[in-house]
Amino acid sequence: MPFVDTLERVLEVVNALNEIANKERKRPVVFTTMINAEFRRQLQSANAIVLDFFEPFIGTLEGALGVSSAQRIGGSHGLVNQPDYQRRIDALNFTLNTDDGLHTRQYAGADVVLMGVSRSGKTPTCLYLALQYGVQASNYPLTEEDLVQPSLPTPLQPHQPKLYGLTIDPYRLHQIRSGRRPNSHYASIENCQDETRRAETLFRRNQIPYVNTSTVSIEEIAARILQKAGLKRYSL
Amino acid sequence: MPFVDTLERVLEVVNALNEIANKERKRPVVFTTMINAEFRRQLQSANAIVLDFFEPFIGTLEGALGVSSAQRIGGSHGLVNQPDYQRRIDALNFTLNTDDGLHTRQYAGADVVLMGVSRSGKTPTCLYLALQYGVQASNYPLTEEDLVQPSLPTPLQPHQPKLYGLTIDPYRLHQIRSGRRPNSHYASIENCQDETRRAETLFRRNQIPYVNTSTVSIEEIAARILQKAGLKRYSL
Repeated sequence: MPFVDTLERVLEVVNALNEIANKERKRPVVFTTMINAEFRRQLQSANAIVLDFFEPFIGTLEGALGVSSAQRIGGSHGLVNQPDYQRRIDALNFTLNTDDGLHTRQYAGADVVLMGVSRSGKTPTCLYLALQYGVQASNYPLTEEDLVQPSLPTPLQPHQPKLYGLTIDPYRLHQIRSGRRPNSHYASIENCQDETRRAETLFRRNQIPYVNTSTVSIEEIAARILQKAGLKRYSL
Repeated sequence: MPFVDTLERVLEVVNALNEIANKERKRPVVFTTMINAEFRRQLQSANAIVLDFFEPFIGTLEGALGVSSAQRIGGSHGLVNQPDYQRRIDALNFTLNTDDGLHTRQYAGADVVLMGVSRSGKTPTCLYLALQYGVQASNYPLTEEDLVQPSLPTPLQPHQPKLYGLTIDPYRLHQIRSGRRPNSHYASIENCQDETRRAETLFRRNQIPYVNTSTVSIEEIAARILQKAGLKRYSL
């Protein structure tokens, strides 16, 4: 329930909780991050188990830091004018601009360059890195031509330290590609097996760390890449 | 410090914290979400103020729900096989496929359609909605032609209930557009003022809720749209 930022809204929430408790004959479990003391007191009066994410920490932090909490409501909402916010938007534009092998000359400005075969999950991962952490993340699709060369594709060669590989389970890839181009060579299981095998060989041969997007979530891949690249996170 | 998931890593962290405390002559403030009891005990032994995000709640929740916590490490990392994860990836593909006025015939499958002048922030907002909440978010750029018509652009007319407008401060728009096409009519302050004024008139005339991206963050816009549209959040 977002935007519970007036006493009126708090009382509406309290009524809604009481109704649920009555109807279900179970006390609802509520997690809250409200900081106004009066709002919190009202919420605690509901027939609910209220777990306050801030209350256990505010006193300790005030003591440790020697300052009082500002108790500003909606603080996480007005971030537009902070430098980290602009950085995330700029990173997103960079990422869109260098998606899917576009503008490889701009790789000098990239924090990371993801490489992998078509539909291996490069774009979602890059967009997540940009939007969530302000990382300038480019991605390069490995073509059939790239996959038969022993060396890295030319546009990637100067950027070895920022390369990360993505691979994918060939059956999953076959499924995804079949949705786009059914019964094509592109989507055939044989071709999907061949491409992923060659891509993984390319990664190993060139000491490029890589991860399988069929088993590891975008969030986890992003966390691993940030960790390995030693990147600062420009996040909320 | 992500991936603190072995006793060895915990002890490394404890040493690092103790070093900081020594050097800075101040106890570091640590927030943690570790759930292994032994790891937490070790961390508490550091010369630091350790705020545990789970500890104050686990006991209460176990009591309320009548179950013991599973204490599984890295639970937030292995989400690939959950339906909500796939929904977010599918939403992202839909969003990319209907970005910037592409494939308007697919709007029937959209949860929301954002409209606004070029560079008013439509793409970042849609990508955030898709990646973060699994919302199928399309966006439609208002062209000069659209802006001189009193009625909604034809592709949008059947979808009035899912339309949301984005506007932007004309000086900010001038700045952004000047970065792309300096000294163009497109980027001129007069044109930016004219386009945003006409867009806002169009929104009001057609009862389309709208928001200014110069003052409201993507996170906030997304929260407001979800709230207004009554959409379920498919998030982590």
